[in-house]
Amino acid sequence: MRIPQFSDVEEAYSRIQPYIHFTPILSSQAINKIAGCKIFFKCENFQKVGAFKFRGACNAVFSLSEEEASGGVATHSSGNHAAALALAAKLRHLHAYIVMPRNAPDIKKKAVGSYGGVITFCEPTLQDREDTLEKIIKESGAIPIHPYNQKEIIAGQGTCALEFLQQQSNLDTIITPVGGGGLLSGTAITCKYLKPEIEVIGAEPSGADDAYRSFKSRERLPVGTTNTIADGLLTSLGDLNFEIITQKVNNIYTSPDSTIIKAMRLIWERMKIIIEPSAAVSLAIVLENKNFFRNKNVGIILSGGNVDLKKLPF
Amino acid sequence: MRIPQFSDVEEAYSRIQPYIHFTPILSSQAINKIAGCKIFFKCENFQKVGAFKFRGACNAVFSLSEEEASGGVATHSSGNHAAALALAAKLRHLHAYIVMPRNAPDIKKKAVGSYGGVITFCEPTLQDREDTLEKIIKESGAIPIHPYNQKEIIAGQGTCALEFLQQQSNLDTIITPVGGGGLLSGTAITCKYLKPEIEVIGAEPSGADDAYRSFKSRERLPVGTTNTIADGLLTSLGDLNFEIITQKVNNIYTSPDSTIIKAMRLIWERMKIIIEPSAAVSLAIVLENKNFFRNKNVGIILSGGNVDLKKLPF
Repeated sequence: MRIPQFSDVEEAYSRIQPYIHFTPILSSQAINKIAGCKIFFKCENFQKVGAFKFRGACNAVFSLSEEEASGGVATHSSGNHAAALALAAKLRHLHAYIVMPRNAPDIKKKAVGSYGGVITFCEPTLQDREDTLEKIIKESGAIPIHPYNQKEIIAGQGTCALEFLQQQSNLDTIITPVGGGGLLSGTAITCKYLKPEIEVIGAEPSGADDAYRSFKSRERLPVGTTNTIADGLLTSLGDLNFEIITQKVNNIYTSPDSTIIKAMRLIWERMKIIIEPSAAVSLAIVLENKNFFRNKNVGIILSGGNVDLKKLPF
Repeated sequence: MRIPQFSDVEEAYSRIQPYIHFTPILSSQAINKIAGCKIFFKCENFQKVGAFKFRGACNAVFSLSEEEASGGVATHSSGNHAAALALAAKLRHLHAYIVMPRNAPDIKKKAVGSYGGVITFCEPTLQDREDTLEKIIKESGAIPIHPYNQKEIIAGQGTCALEFLQQQSNLDTIITPVGGGGLLSGTAITCKYLKPEIEVIGAEPSGADDAYRSFKSRERLPVGTTNTIADGLLTSLGDLNFEIITQKVNNIYTSPDSTIIKAMRLIWERMKIIIEPSAAVSLAIVLENKNFFRNKNVGIILSGGNVDLKKLPF
């Protein structure tokens, strides 16, 4: 079966459980009052490497056979997937080859380096990223691990909703941000198996709304020019992710950056926790659609907390 | 008995339990590695009004008889105690009269206002603060609630360690910041009753080190000129607090601001939670005295998370 099933999520969970944090759920009466519903925040900003991405990377790395693993793993990414893959590989004592654009922020380079990733810099074009990755794979025999369009990654990300439903069984809705679609598709697989009546909703910035447009038109459209502060959500949907999302997700909403920043600030100030802009999009779509969410029990996966403290939007 | 006993802490806990948050404990492997010991952070930055101060204020307000309470409560404060007292009074449907210096930060004025506190502005001198408070008490019949030098406040702050020891029974040491001494003295009462072998340690900025000097000389000394980023710790020890601290606290350490800022940043970046500078002093003294804390199980009370996001020290 090409598309991961709930059994893959269960297997992923047994595989990665020794390595991941079981992240807590937090709530804020002040935010509930502002939003007009009861929100439960699953804090993947507290996950290892500061993002849910560690779940998928860990599952992908520990799914490899000894032989497959022998040459290490590789990816091109300047974001949380790179750090997640580097740490997961380190835990299995493998090399992780990370292709990063030369102009990636220092903070991201440092994070990957601190987990022992072997960085190769490339020009900041998709073509050069892919060419450089190809070359490294040929030279090292490393296995490429895609950030979202891969069965093991999707199953790994689906373990977050598995914990969430254990911790909080009364959810009417679960919202996750959507970029490439790894977290949203994994969440949908878990929820629609365990509790099909839960509405699974994607949250996307208006300035990078390919998932919204693809979902509405039932045709996978590329993201095109992007303009949003949510720098983790700039990618187009993968084909596997698109297939799962069209089958299992109830809806996708978008939000302008102004509301994303407002939501981010609300979470920082009222909950005293640090989230990155991409993680704030879910609360932003609640604030943009209060009537729809009114009085519901809303689960929000806070996807990550990696943000440059010197470049805050407020 | 003039000094609060552990039974007062127990009574306080039954009194305030319906109103307070039971705050979680978080840990960070990365910080443990840097510090060379195992640290358990009790997150009072997640407490209502964003600080442990709500525990004491709540106990003081709900300890009043109907008659005493009828005129409301009052204090002079520009910090977390003002917000805490305003919310506690609101929950008992009382007036809270808060005297604040005219030049207090807007963010503090807003916080007190948002909890329904009645603010009277005064000149930013201790004399005018006290005169204004005196006048308000005479006019309104309100009961003054001291920020730290009062039995009910100390007993209320002692409930934090009560929860902490329930959650984490293997602590060798508990560290709290010390300003007026409410939290440190309450913590010492609880710990020395429940588990006398725990070392109770105060953490103070070098730039406001009256508690350190008082502790060492066994004489209560005033704070004098202060120079520190830890704006919640500028006050001198109260006489009640001093008495308890000299009896029950094992030691007080100080830290320069440079290490306080480093510790604050470590907690923000590695744990993805927001704490104010005053809350970072405890980790700072661990970093300053690594040999003393090496391999111990160290409990740290993160005292609060109220910080102006526009004025970060990094």
